[in-house]
Amino acid sequence: MAKVTPRTLSGFMELLPSDQVKMERIMQILRDSYSVYGFTPLDTPVIESSEVLLAKGGGETEKQIYRFTKGDSDLSLRFDLTVPLAKYVAAHYGELTFPFRRYQIGKVYRGERAQRGRFREFYQADIDIIGDGSLNIMNEAEIPAIIYHTFTRLGFRRFKIHVNNRKILNGFYSMNGMSEKSGEIMRTVDKLDKIGAEKVRTLLIEEVKMLPCKAETVMDFMAICGTNAEVIAGLERYRGMDSTFDEGLDELIAVTSHLREFGVPEENFAVDLTIARGLDYYTGTVYETIMTDHPEIGSVCSGGRYDNLAEYYTDKKLPGVGISIGLTRLFYVLQEQKLLSDEVVSSPADALVIPMSEDLGPAISVATELRSVGIRTQLYMEKKKFKARMSYADKLAIPFVILLGDDEINEGICSVKNMNSGEQIKLKPSDAAVYIREKIDALNSAPIIKE
Amino acid sequence: MAKVTPRTLSGFMELLPSDQVKMERIMQILRDSYSVYGFTPLDTPVIESSEVLLAKGGGETEKQIYRFTKGDSDLSLRFDLTVPLAKYVAAHYGELTFPFRRYQIGKVYRGERAQRGRFREFYQADIDIIGDGSLNIMNEAEIPAIIYHTFTRLGFRRFKIHVNNRKILNGFYSMNGMSEKSGEIMRTVDKLDKIGAEKVRTLLIEEVKMLPCKAETVMDFMAICGTNAEVIAGLERYRGMDSTFDEGLDELIAVTSHLREFGVPEENFAVDLTIARGLDYYTGTVYETIMTDHPEIGSVCSGGRYDNLAEYYTDKKLPGVGISIGLTRLFYVLQEQKLLSDEVVSSPADALVIPMSEDLGPAISVATELRSVGIRTQLYMEKKKFKARMSYADKLAIPFVILLGDDEINEGICSVKNMNSGEQIKLKPSDAAVYIREKIDALNSAPIIKE
Repeated sequence: MAKVTPRTLSGFMELLPSDQVKMERIMQILRDSYSVYGFTPLDTPVIESSEVLLAKGGGETEKQIYRFTKGDSDLSLRFDLTVPLAKYVAAHYGELTFPFRRYQIGKVYRGERAQRGRFREFYQADIDIIGDGSLNIMNEAEIPAIIYHTFTRLGFRRFKIHVNNRKILNGFYSMNGMSEKSGEIMRTVDKLDKIGAEKVRTLLIEEVKMLPCKAETVMDFMAICGTNAEVIAGLERYRGMDSTFDEGLDELIAVTSHLREFGVPEENFAVDLTIARGLDYYTGTVYETIMTDHPEIGSVCSGGRYDNLAEYYTDKKLPGVGISIGLTRLFYVLQEQKLLSDEVVSSPADALVIPMSEDLGPAISVATELRSVGIRTQLYMEKKKFKARMSYADKLAIPFVILLGDDEINEGICSVKNMNSGEQIKLKPSDAAVYIREKIDALNSAPIIKE
Repeated sequence: MAKVTPRTLSGFMELLPSDQVKMERIMQILRDSYSVYGFTPLDTPVIESSEVLLAKGGGETEKQIYRFTKGDSDLSLRFDLTVPLAKYVAAHYGELTFPFRRYQIGKVYRGERAQRGRFREFYQADIDIIGDGSLNIMNEAEIPAIIYHTFTRLGFRRFKIHVNNRKILNGFYSMNGMSEKSGEIMRTVDKLDKIGAEKVRTLLIEEVKMLPCKAETVMDFMAICGTNAEVIAGLERYRGMDSTFDEGLDELIAVTSHLREFGVPEENFAVDLTIARGLDYYTGTVYETIMTDHPEIGSVCSGGRYDNLAEYYTDKKLPGVGISIGLTRLFYVLQEQKLLSDEVVSSPADALVIPMSEDLGPAISVATELRSVGIRTQLYMEKKKFKARMSYADKLAIPFVILLGDDEINEGICSVKNMNSGEQIKLKPSDAAVYIREKIDALNSAPIIKE
């Protein structure tokens, strides 16, 4: 028979088993962490009516959409999790209780140009809090805690959550008569960490066509840094000149004032006046998360406050705040940077039971006993030589092998081989279960990410 | 602004939050249970090249495929998880270790006619064990254990795993000179539990055009039932007349002989000569799982042994055995039959912390403490009246509310209200964490499915 070459489309991540186990572990930590902060899981269809999904229309994204017809239906694959959330909240408004806190981890689709590290199918892991008419600023204050605890549980230590407030920026540009050019200025200032202050000043003057003194005003403002208290003191000097600015400053103070109670160390947090997160969507606090040793990756968890989630679907005013992790991209980077731990058990099983007698019954009983305490157990059933059986465990990096020959069966014990240390001990099956359970728990207590 | 009506496509399941929590819980049990049996998670793209996905071609399925072009690419959405597995194993053959045991829980797409309880996007939850060249019969023997333990963990008690062997059927038809009509006969016999023996006999004679004595031969064979030992004794009477039959009988004996060691009670297992699972694909043991009180639903977990997973992609002979749960359909039925437990906590949070003082710090600290022991905690931040705050907890069925007024703050305690019992007690925050943790664990120890 003629064969079709089995291939996976480019831009679509497909992992080998041991990497997939690591990915699953990361997803499980995200699910757990988001749940602990009181977010409920949501699952929306991958396919939506194009009319619904593209209600906002236009934009760069639309060209990338996977759009097609099936029968009479004009359909599209979701390109983010925010639009489906807007649809969901608008459609189920009467059945939801607000503030509505949901997380969603799901695949989204963008037909980007194929390129190393760029994906056309990728996971986003989002949380959002949606208010009905209003949403208290303290919801914005809670977001850094969620980022901090999630990243810490993953094993990250060296990262910083950068926070700014769009009202502070808008107010500042307004008080200096720069509102018209604010978009251009923000895009230029965004390059600060890449090209440095000198070049940004030059660009502001030469390309944005600002007067040198005005450019200096911007540079002075952006240079405000230090501890939270120092930044806020620096910003207080501008108070009273613009009401939007003052509102933003009050919000920033609220966001920074309870970090300790939220359990966020100050070294993992920074007010950063240079970040803006795009131009239209966000209206208040904005967030970026930077890996200290890998700033070149850019932000690995970003988001912010917005005023109107679902304006294309409903007249209800639904303000919200949310953050998103580009999970597939993050996983790719962690692989590339060799930051995924090898200590965590990534084999398909914790233990392999190898029967070495004619009667398979005792081996099956041992496997059943191990499984009853949650030890991921395989039974090796193939008729292969001893060496081939051990090589199977070895190739899969299964940490424990249980050997059951006639001698062991007669004695009512089993031989437990620790494949990492080579040590082999004889134990009753119930003791073997306790022993392996403990060792596996210890191995799995290592964080999945090792900086 | 003109609004677009927010709607979800028909045939696409989209759950409200409390149902989604239940669905997540079921998925988590499936992941855990499959893992405990040594299956490694796999995640393949939703989109594949049409050439690859439709390599087998033809068939009813092809009409239902979501197929479209993007740029120059002819693409399709996967319609099951078996074809992507075949592609994966063929593509990564050199990087995998065999037998390869994988589970995959993922969405698949079939453009079926829209109909209540029929889904166009639905989850399948599959496990497969793939051998390289050969695969020992004991892998087939292990499958009922996996079904039994998975269903038991979900909370099912009243179900039966029906097992047959295609070689027994093929051998029986061959020894009776009925091989040509075997397809028709199997399709007719498949109706036994729906229309009864009399009508099946009539159909065999009138529609399949069998001689009455031949039809009787079939009916006699299909009537073999009883305990495993009785069925096997009944089948032994046919031994020696057809080598395929004898092989199938030996396999059936192997599959039934270790049920006890695998921990499968005989009452949850039955050899059932009437099941065949379609005509082409399966070659050995076949499985169906029937809910005792709801036989009308049909099998909720089915599968079997096949000889060649990936023949369209590779010359390698890759025999395997697998089962699949149609998870979306199963969930729909459980909802309809009101079999989903309401005891399990399905609110977005286990606890709601309500600050009742100006200073939010103490409330935030309490929330942080609860979260540190894994209690899913929300902080109620909105400026609403007390009644509205309690009503929020009530509507979401959050089981515990923690009230923190000035009195509590001054005493260093918090008031914990059990929303189910109405009981309210004062505890130190660390004691509240222990208290709530225990209560929540007790609630969540209830099975998600309540028969």
